[in-house]
Amino acid sequence: MNQSTAQKSEQAEREQKPHVLTLPLEQTQANRAPHSYERWLIAKLMRMAGSPPVRFQLWNDEVIDLGNQEARFTIHLMDPKALYTLVTNPNLAFGDLYSAGRLEVDGELPDLMEALYRSVHRARQKWPKWLDALWRNPNPRSTGILEAKENIHHHYDLGNEFYQLWLDHAAMQYTCAYYEQPELTLEQAQLAKLEHVCRKLRLRPGMTVVEAGCGWGGLARYMARNYGVNVDSYNISKEQLTFAREQARKEKLEHLINYVEDDYRNIEGQYDAFVSIGMLEHVGKQNFQTLSELIKRSLKPDGIALLHSIGRNRPMLMNAWIEKRIFPGAYPPSIGEFMEICEHGDFSVLDVENLRLHYAQTLTHWMERFNRNEDKVSEMYDDHFTRAWRMYLAGSIAAFRAGSLQLFQVVFTHGDNNQLPQSRQDLYAFPAAPEDI
Amino acid sequence: MNQSTAQKSEQAEREQKPHVLTLPLEQTQANRAPHSYERWLIAKLMRMAGSPPVRFQLWNDEVIDLGNQEARFTIHLMDPKALYTLVTNPNLAFGDLYSAGRLEVDGELPDLMEALYRSVHRARQKWPKWLDALWRNPNPRSTGILEAKENIHHHYDLGNEFYQLWLDHAAMQYTCAYYEQPELTLEQAQLAKLEHVCRKLRLRPGMTVVEAGCGWGGLARYMARNYGVNVDSYNISKEQLTFAREQARKEKLEHLINYVEDDYRNIEGQYDAFVSIGMLEHVGKQNFQTLSELIKRSLKPDGIALLHSIGRNRPMLMNAWIEKRIFPGAYPPSIGEFMEICEHGDFSVLDVENLRLHYAQTLTHWMERFNRNEDKVSEMYDDHFTRAWRMYLAGSIAAFRAGSLQLFQVVFTHGDNNQLPQSRQDLYAFPAAPEDI
Repeated sequence: MNQSTAQKSEQAEREQKPHVLTLPLEQTQANRAPHSYERWLIAKLMRMAGSPPVRFQLWNDEVIDLGNQEARFTIHLMDPKALYTLVTNPNLAFGDLYSAGRLEVDGELPDLMEALYRSVHRARQKWPKWLDALWRNPNPRSTGILEAKENIHHHYDLGNEFYQLWLDHAAMQYTCAYYEQPELTLEQAQLAKLEHVCRKLRLRPGMTVVEAGCGWGGLARYMARNYGVNVDSYNISKEQLTFAREQARKEKLEHLINYVEDDYRNIEGQYDAFVSIGMLEHVGKQNFQTLSELIKRSLKPDGIALLHSIGRNRPMLMNAWIEKRIFPGAYPPSIGEFMEICEHGDFSVLDVENLRLHYAQTLTHWMERFNRNEDKVSEMYDDHFTRAWRMYLAGSIAAFRAGSLQLFQVVFTHGDNNQLPQSRQDLYAFPAAPEDI
Repeated sequence: MNQSTAQKSEQAEREQKPHVLTLPLEQTQANRAPHSYERWLIAKLMRMAGSPPVRFQLWNDEVIDLGNQEARFTIHLMDPKALYTLVTNPNLAFGDLYSAGRLEVDGELPDLMEALYRSVHRARQKWPKWLDALWRNPNPRSTGILEAKENIHHHYDLGNEFYQLWLDHAAMQYTCAYYEQPELTLEQAQLAKLEHVCRKLRLRPGMTVVEAGCGWGGLARYMARNYGVNVDSYNISKEQLTFAREQARKEKLEHLINYVEDDYRNIEGQYDAFVSIGMLEHVGKQNFQTLSELIKRSLKPDGIALLHSIGRNRPMLMNAWIEKRIFPGAYPPSIGEFMEICEHGDFSVLDVENLRLHYAQTLTHWMERFNRNEDKVSEMYDDHFTRAWRMYLAGSIAAFRAGSLQLFQVVFTHGDNNQLPQSRQDLYAFPAAPEDI
């Protein structure tokens, strides 16, 4: 079986699996007393997870409090099989069981998830090898040109209407905002992010910019409107591009923006700036050299490149549930892995900024809006979907708070470019966020 | 032969070799006509170096102009053997021959060196393997605790009087300054660097700081004087420590500063800040994990670490001449290699700033002062030394200008520390350089 056939059959196998684990009602509502080895299993599970401040409530309402730390959260398991599923592969099963309503939580979901992240992070150093192997996250699936289309469609083509329910109304940004001041609104912080990026790129009117992965096109419109630059923005999500083009037409910015429906790997021409916000996570390590070579040939001798991406403090596979159910193919690189892009292209790294806690705050703002609109979401999809999405947002908040995920903005130029800004002073000359929104 | 014996005999062999290649006068002043294969050798050498804008003037005054580019520099070779030495190992021989006065240059030395750097950088991609092997820079020598002492003594114990001739008078900084504005004086820019570092560390009165490698102690005194913090500063150079302690006494800062004569690997205790300016270049890649573990245990949970180091855009060995004659054991890491320190310790990188062109300007200011004091230097040492030092300063200016060397300031914290500054705004709240110096 060659690699591509293997990938296809793996893909097919995945598609046959239901997105969540559902069981007939009579099985999920079991209320028999737990066996003693089931209690033992829970105790063992909690010890392996580093004894987080959690108690369990079982299908028959029996409460298991291990008393290691003052329990601040209760996890309800609705049926015995939920326990076995959880123990076999907690990384994947926790989200699946929650989505299916077979696991419920008392307490704030992001706080519980943060407690779990912190506790597991410490505990896993001591796991025996067999456990590490059993609970291991899988390698991300392929991100070749064809698979990328499928991966991106899975997440980003859920419908603009859905994303409009909880993203900012100013620029439809589905990436980390910049809370220059902690009290900024989501709209202010997203515009501040766009402004911060433009300043880092040192844009001036008449420059040309290429954008790899443009979402709903908000950055391109901000750049065109506020900096008078010409932007070519690439994206492979049809739904997003339809929205982006419509907005540009409404704002009379069509003459400055070209939204291109194509893979970033097909970018042509040379530009004053190369920018990519929140795409690198979907690129995959195996494509870093290609990306590096692409930037090398797309950037004018004096040009500046900026990549904004979720990352890690050290190499680590994506959480299994997120990779399987939410972001197929996703892999947030460690900063060292990120540097392969710069080293391979002999680029000079000028500036790295980590906005980890800004992403936690962005996600908190998103989740507040999402929670307010849950009924609408359930109407558009179903309860399953709503619960899965809630888990995804809560888990992401937790991961950024616990330092499991980072958000890097990396600025770099060709290695022999001496037209560099004297300092970063000009990034901070006046507030990046608008006051009147 | 075990490793340590091998190292010792290598060390002994090095010490037996004269620091520069001198020849009896009758050999160096040969004025015979060059052979035709000597002309061919020069043409070949220049082609391998990417045809830089250089002409040659030979021992008999014959000029060889290859006409590839308009020649802006003339390299004089004083004797035939100089040509053979140069061709066999240009990386090492260029500096040696220049130091010995067997190679002279018409034109500005930093400009010539920059032209050579840029030209060789492009050309070497196409070198045949045998040439790459022949001209390869050697691995840096060991930087174990004993060797480090020897390496550091070689360079830093040349005498405080010597360094005072050309370093700044404000803080005796032998590291990259920060030219917040291009017109700053060396003194202003060095104080601005110290201020910039203190701001990045977010120092507040009463905090404790540990410094690995403190030079003449200027940063510790700046921190104590301007931020009221307690500093423990480690150094293995006796000469520098004598100066540092004397200065602290004069400035009545002894109660806040403890200058420790010891290897950085022996740092003990926990601090609010860990700082190291210009030491990492001497640490050696093989000690990065040890350094990482040292920082891990020396930094309080909410502490901030800053490493300031010469680096590279990609892994590359130190220029042979610099490593052999100027900085034994030196290895400037690529930013990717640098990240091993952060990844190994599960640190979170908050901020990377590249001050490459600031180092070119710093070195230019040093060289101006050095040139004004050349007579004194030659009196203290000899012409050889003066010429070697001039080559070192000029070559370093060139390397930073050509992008062969970088200067990274990297700020990081423990991975689970959430007491992070909201933004970098406060680094730029008011000028870092004093006006009145």
